Amino acid sequence: MVMSKGLIGIDLGGTTTKMAFLNEDGEVLEKWRILTDISDNGSHIVPNIIKSISKHIEDSGKTTDDFIGIGMGTPGAVNRENGTVSEAFNLNWKTTQPIRKDIQAGLGLPFDLDNDANVASLGEYWKGAGSNEDDIVFATLGTGVGGGVIANGKLLHGVNGGAGEIGHITVQPNGYLCTCGKRGCLETYASATGIVRVADDMAKEFNGTSRLKELIDDGDEKITSKLVFYLADNGDILANQVVDRICFYLGLALSMIGNTLNPASIIIGGGVSNAGNTLLQPTTKYFQQNAFPSVRDSTKIKLAKLGNDAGVIGAASMALQFR
Amino acid sequence: MVMSKGLIGIDLGGTTTKMAFLNEDGEVLEKWRILTDISDNGSHIVPNIIKSISKHIEDSGKTTDDFIGIGMGTPGAVNRENGTVSEAFNLNWKTTQPIRKDIQAGLGLPFDLDNDANVASLGEYWKGAGSNEDDIVFATLGTGVGGGVIANGKLLHGVNGGAGEIGHITVQPNGYLCTCGKRGCLETYASATGIVRVADDMAKEFNGTSRLKELIDDGDEKITSKLVFYLADNGDILANQVVDRICFYLGLALSMIGNTLNPASIIIGGGVSNAGNTLLQPTTKYFQQNAFPSVRDSTKIKLAKLGNDAGVIGAASMALQFR
Repeated sequence: MVMSKGLIGIDLGGTTTKMAFLNEDGEVLEKWRILTDISDNGSHIVPNIIKSISKHIEDSGKTTDDFIGIGMGTPGAVNRENGTVSEAFNLNWKTTQPIRKDIQAGLGLPFDLDNDANVASLGEYWKGAGSNEDDIVFATLGTGVGGGVIANGKLLHGVNGGAGEIGHITVQPNGYLCTCGKRGCLETYASATGIVRVADDMAKEFNGTSRLKELIDDGDEKITSKLVFYLADNGDILANQVVDRICFYLGLALSMIGNTLNPASIIIGGGVSNAGNTLLQPTTKYFQQNAFPSVRDSTKIKLAKLGNDAGVIGAASMALQFR
Repeated sequence: MVMSKGLIGIDLGGTTTKMAFLNEDGEVLEKWRILTDISDNGSHIVPNIIKSISKHIEDSGKTTDDFIGIGMGTPGAVNRENGTVSEAFNLNWKTTQPIRKDIQAGLGLPFDLDNDANVASLGEYWKGAGSNEDDIVFATLGTGVGGGVIANGKLLHGVNGGAGEIGHITVQPNGYLCTCGKRGCLETYASATGIVRVADDMAKEFNGTSRLKELIDDGDEKITSKLVFYLADNGDILANQVVDRICFYLGLALSMIGNTLNPASIIIGGGVSNAGNTLLQPTTKYFQQNAFPSVRDSTKIKLAKLGNDAGVIGAASMALQFR
């Protein structure tokens, strides 16, 4: 019996590293995770990945010959030509890391990598909310806001790797200061931390009765974006005002992307997207208010489908190039 | 002697129709224009084009065998699959026009068409300010504001032909009402008509000494965007404030495009771009203020190079597909 060969996907994060074996159709055959050991300047990260994958290949009675190749998504700035990663501060890497060289040497398989938001976009494009569409944009709302753009079936990188930096679209000139150094970026409003900041500021101006305001004023419980959406779902007035403002900025930014690219779908993922329709419906409303008619009538705003698996699935899809 | 075959480009406009013969390297060998006769529901437009091209082929001692094919840029909504045009109100066409069928039948050459802003983008991409770059965005500031997006060397259309509708990016929520039905579109500020509207409104609030304000208050001379830039160049305070506001909105919109696509260049063309550095410098400043650092450092804002020839050159480039 001829077995089709497998793909290996790696989703490297600051806390855990997710890995998976997939077949060429994108079905996850096996997935697992290990803690990311960032001690000693992150020097254990790559050896631990190599060890873990080797063991899983062995345990499943296979050899590297049964695999086509490996793809990986990583935080930081990726140099795809050299196969290196720099500026990955949450991994404790102080210098540029020769990831491709190390993993290819350690496992004897061809390897490619890209940044985590781009890789998650590939996952949703291949097997998630964007499958069967040639033009999609993915927006991931987590600690920060990232994104990826797929046009004519290809991931765009731009001239300096900055394509998909939709978290830094200015939605409020002279707005909140962003970690990137400029003001009013989408990320300062629509990331998990941005939502809490908006809630804090709106609570100061709010005079009515609100559990969210009480919790913020008491200062005992840590406010999270999840709590803001939970309270909004339960009728809290301030929480609903916060959600409305967030969704206004998100819908506005997505309309700008829509008017530029008219993709079939703009897919919202990341932890904040767990808010579901509470996030999706007002965002879609503000998108539609600000989208050009032919775009409004054709570009769909959707929630992501793959959750935490988008990274390993998208990463594995990069290995298809080695067939 | 073997001659390489030629390309034919057509740039159809509401007042004139420009046509040209080019070689495969994109050199213009001959160009001419005819008036666009929009009488009788625009029924003379296509026959006149066929007649004019036939005559020019004959006059140059050639036959259709000496040409590879024809490309055309047109106003209105283009259906590329069917080769038809609809909603071209400034051509007086009331119904969907089977342009490809008619021109192929009339001239016996393969034919392709696209909307005028996309075609001008192809021209600047091929032989103008964007040549030798794979990712560019073209913004044309004229009576309206249009655009085109080229990524990985391919013009993007999006799922419903709405890619490149950058004139309808919202730059001012709840701003001026646009002809498209929504508010605060870039076109309502940065088109030739938008600039005059901004000047009129800012003149009402302005209290200092300004030739522009005098001219607006007198109402004798028709204010144009060209006059606004001329007065700004000559030190008029209000005119400079108007230009600064226009360029703020333009730079902001271009930063959103930059953060999404990180193209090598964003090229500004159209009649308004004749203002040159008076437009380019403040626009670049506001672009840089609102662009993500890696985008700010790599995406260049440039003026278009081909002027009125962008249309025929880009149109001719579409015929290269028939080689």
